[in-house]
Amino acid sequence: MSRFLGLDTDDVRFPTSLTLDGSDAMNPDPDYSAAYLRVRTDGADGLVGHGFVFTIGRGNDVQVAAIRSLESYVAGRDVDEVLDDLGGFWRHLVHDSQLRWLGPEKGIMHMAVGAVLNALWDLKAKRAGRPLWRLLASLSPQQIVDLTDFRYLTDALTPDEALEILEKAEPGRALREQDLLDNGYPAYTTTPGWLGYDDDKLARLCRQAVADGFEQIKLKVGADKAADVRRLRIAREVCGPEVGIAVDANQRWDVAVAIDWMKALAPFDVAWIEEPTSPDDVLGHAAVARAIAPIPVATGEHVANRVMFKQFLQAGALEILQLDASRVAGVNENIAILLLAAKFGVRVCPHAGGVGLCEAVQHLSMFDYVAVSGSNEGRMIEYVDHLHEHFVAPVDVRRGRYHAPLMPGTGAEMLPESVATHRYRADV
Amino acid sequence: MSRFLGLDTDDVRFPTSLTLDGSDAMNPDPDYSAAYLRVRTDGADGLVGHGFVFTIGRGNDVQVAAIRSLESYVAGRDVDEVLDDLGGFWRHLVHDSQLRWLGPEKGIMHMAVGAVLNALWDLKAKRAGRPLWRLLASLSPQQIVDLTDFRYLTDALTPDEALEILEKAEPGRALREQDLLDNGYPAYTTTPGWLGYDDDKLARLCRQAVADGFEQIKLKVGADKAADVRRLRIAREVCGPEVGIAVDANQRWDVAVAIDWMKALAPFDVAWIEEPTSPDDVLGHAAVARAIAPIPVATGEHVANRVMFKQFLQAGALEILQLDASRVAGVNENIAILLLAAKFGVRVCPHAGGVGLCEAVQHLSMFDYVAVSGSNEGRMIEYVDHLHEHFVAPVDVRRGRYHAPLMPGTGAEMLPESVATHRYRADV
Repeated sequence: MSRFLGLDTDDVRFPTSLTLDGSDAMNPDPDYSAAYLRVRTDGADGLVGHGFVFTIGRGNDVQVAAIRSLESYVAGRDVDEVLDDLGGFWRHLVHDSQLRWLGPEKGIMHMAVGAVLNALWDLKAKRAGRPLWRLLASLSPQQIVDLTDFRYLTDALTPDEALEILEKAEPGRALREQDLLDNGYPAYTTTPGWLGYDDDKLARLCRQAVADGFEQIKLKVGADKAADVRRLRIAREVCGPEVGIAVDANQRWDVAVAIDWMKALAPFDVAWIEEPTSPDDVLGHAAVARAIAPIPVATGEHVANRVMFKQFLQAGALEILQLDASRVAGVNENIAILLLAAKFGVRVCPHAGGVGLCEAVQHLSMFDYVAVSGSNEGRMIEYVDHLHEHFVAPVDVRRGRYHAPLMPGTGAEMLPESVATHRYRADV
Repeated sequence: MSRFLGLDTDDVRFPTSLTLDGSDAMNPDPDYSAAYLRVRTDGADGLVGHGFVFTIGRGNDVQVAAIRSLESYVAGRDVDEVLDDLGGFWRHLVHDSQLRWLGPEKGIMHMAVGAVLNALWDLKAKRAGRPLWRLLASLSPQQIVDLTDFRYLTDALTPDEALEILEKAEPGRALREQDLLDNGYPAYTTTPGWLGYDDDKLARLCRQAVADGFEQIKLKVGADKAADVRRLRIAREVCGPEVGIAVDANQRWDVAVAIDWMKALAPFDVAWIEEPTSPDDVLGHAAVARAIAPIPVATGEHVANRVMFKQFLQAGALEILQLDASRVAGVNENIAILLLAAKFGVRVCPHAGGVGLCEAVQHLSMFDYVAVSGSNEGRMIEYVDHLHEHFVAPVDVRRGRYHAPLMPGTGAEMLPESVATHRYRADV
């Protein structure tokens, strides 16, 4: 029998604000960061679980403190017992009566819970010798349902309905798994479209994206309407009519402004508008969606939890669901979100980029394809070519597709030398 | 010219779980706590601004760390400049591009921002020699509008509409201020109704509440339906038909369960059902409200921000708006919430109890009565007789009414010896 020893944490920050990588209308100068953790055991296998919360700089220290505060929930526990019932352990953490006051189920404490759970999933997958997506895709429909908490969801999705969705997808699992191994999963790229880039760089990176085989790109918008029209025209000219161009306002607008602004951008055949307004504003997104149809509305990277996603779906407020690996309470909550998306028949196109998000979300999309929605049609994973070199198993994106990861784990493990080099010190 | 020196913080916890004070269906054993701060200046007046976030125990240390992380936003700044434009300073903190990633506008970081802003309001009121409610009620309608951020609100409330609401209330201000000084503001009490109390204690405390002049009490429900029916019957018998009895499920139910449970409690003439389900579930609350009408739905203590309140109002999901002093980003955001409530014509009955919440919210309700809604009809402030002895200016509740506080400040200042005695040490 082995026991958890504790959590090691690191405040890791990359000075991305120096190059305006990642700049958008709401985030002019992000410093891509990770509140990073390792969960250790006294097991003879020496395996360690890795997890993180992605942030954009200031406050990463508080996120680390929140993760640290969860050590007492893990340390000393029986490893097998915890890893054999991650559904139960999810409830233990998320529904802790004192901790939930700090959210509930949102913000720093919820993301900390997610990072700890993801680290446990990383350990579980490594012990199983499988990449997360294959581990999840090997579970029975009932085992997947048992990982999921349906509290606050039952008016939209019951455990029985979830089971039905999963059972329906079961017969095709082997074929789709082979398809992933052979062909990977579609990607789109955000690399050309950061707001801080000038027109020449935009055009050059658009050209590069098409040459690299991407079938969709994304442009940041929302700071200056005339400039957005100009940039979108450049992108459309360079990319040609066949390549999808999504736009992303990063929550910059009020509802009426969003509708007005999108009328100006509509002539350029926009694939979706992402985060037109506050990520809390379900009814606002629904109003925008009705007004600008048929342009689809996308959101998710800042949607706090499954209860919010449930309402976005109930209200017809999104057509593209952009789950995030480190915003919600880990793999379990993302399974609930995938099941909701399947129930409502919307496409899941995860948010990625940042630090390690590409490495993490590919597992969720691939699991979804194999065992939940059973489809990758119109679905794609965001790709940004930043900071992958710091990971032990960086994503393998070629010809516009994510190639299926084969290394055991969730992809969250960073290189020790990267952690050491980019460990944040407030005094320097 | 004086400058801010910095923030002093304390992790203050009271062992309330020992007596089951504060116990409900979701919070069986809270330890009422405060992440407490003092903001100091180099001014000759020696005045200090006090603020806090109320929590229920574990994680209070993380909340303190979040407050501490904001020190660099305050220290070194010109005191007059900041206090003369708290609307601008609100935007500076809430819309900080890196910090907002940690919410946005929700959870630990948002509450930390609220505590810092509230401490600045405390200092401002002390420098003006006025209790907060009178300071706010002395501002012009335009000054009040300037304190408020309308981002994400304009589809429900524009600055012009807010100005109109405030101007309409202006002529009656003096009369209502005098009414408050003479008669105070209505209160209701939650003291009898904690779930951990046995039937005898419930009956005794109900009797006491009526004798003390309260016109409404509140009972916690949601753990056991048969027990709730029994307890509600006892309360109704003891209180008689004239006293209002509200019930509070503290988020325990899913939508269908809430509707079913409330059908069982309806015969006892329920004043409102509070927090029937997740505080994020606007559409769920709306469904409950439709199904159990005319019983009003109340919520707010866990509603993360003004964008969520906006939707609760747009969807007809609440009839009683229970703002909280330390959940949102301080006095400014609560002004926005009061304006929204006035626009939609719902009653505001603040959440209180905890540590220092009664002391804080009375100022908001009194300001609302004098200068915003202009009414106290059907409105009342929650009252719980816990922990007031730790405050420099404890609330004065007699004959079921909050008597208007006259001491300068917001009421947040704790006695130094209480802070010292209850400072949390993880090792004891």
